[in-house]
Parts: sequence; C-alpha cells; structure tokens
Amino acid sequence: MWDVASIIAAVLTTVSFVPQALKAVQGNTKSVSLWMFIIFAIGVVCWSIYAISNGLIALAFSNSIATVLAGIILTFKIKNIRKGIDV
Amino acid sequence: MWDVASIIAAVLTTVSFVPQALKAVQGNTKSVSLWMFIIFAIGVVCWSIYAISNGLIALAFSNSIATVLAGIILTFKIKNIRKGIDV
Repeated sequence: MWDVASIIAAVLTTVSFVPQALKAVQGNTKSVSLWMFIIFAIGVVCWSIYAISNGLIALAFSNSIATVLAGIILTFKIKNIRKGIDV
Repeated sequence: MWDVASIIAAVLTTVSFVPQALKAVQGNTKSVSLWMFIIFAIGVVCWSIYAISNGLIALAFSNSIATVLAGIILTFKIKNIRKGIDV
C-alpha cells in the first residue's frame, strides 16, 4: 500500500522541477539560488546511485529526471551570471 | 557500502534548500516558481510518509527537513505575491 505513496512522491517531486526549469529556459533565474542547484544536483546524483544499486525503481527514476531538470536550471543560471544579469 | 551514498544524498538534497530558503527570507523570491514549491512540498510529504512507513531513516529525515524548508520558501513566495511584488 505504501508503495503508492512512493510513486505519487516520485511523480510530484520530479514534476515540480518542470515549472522552475521553464522559468529558467525563459531566462528568469534572478532569485534562483546557484548554490541550491549545485548542491541539489550532486545530491540527486547520489540518490540515483543509491537507488539504482538497491533496486528502488521509483527513487531511481525520480532522481534521474530531477538530475536532468536541475542541470537545465543550473545551465541557465550560470549563463545569466556570465552575462552579468544574475549574481 | 551504498548506504554511504544515501547518507551523503540525504544531507546534500536537504542542505541544498537552505541557500534558497535564506534568499526567500530576505524577500528574494521573484523567479522562484510558486508551482514548483507547491508540488514539491506535497511530494516530500509523500516521500516522508513512504520513508517512515518503510523504516528508511535517511530518506525520512531528509524529506522531513525538506518539507520544512520548502514550507518556508512557499510562505515567503505567497507573502510576496499578496504584496504584489511577485507573480
């Protein structure tokens, strides 16, 4: 029964990064924390390693997509910092 | 051995929200996505339920703190929307 919670959780925490990634793609990253997404990206990579090696499918799937989305946000944030738009 | 990855992952994904929460407390939430943090907060609550009921300590601990931090960010974001500063 509780596995339903993990599937809902995986979908929600993964999907949640989509609206933030969309904002980032549109160049809107001013109040996005650079450090949040650097630390978060390393964290979700670690979660992916743990999940894959323990066969926790939902956790692995969720964190792999989260890694990609965090990577997109980070890319646009760094781009804006280089352009001098963000700090 | 892989449990080390889960501990590092738990610490990193939890700690990552601290710099974003600090920005939020300072009133800087303009490019923070409201929908990201609404969906994310529900997601981490679900992860907490799953983790606690399965005895996954690192996952439970990480997601409980993430819930609190996401709650702080969400509170300040909604505050700024009500003030008319954010959309």
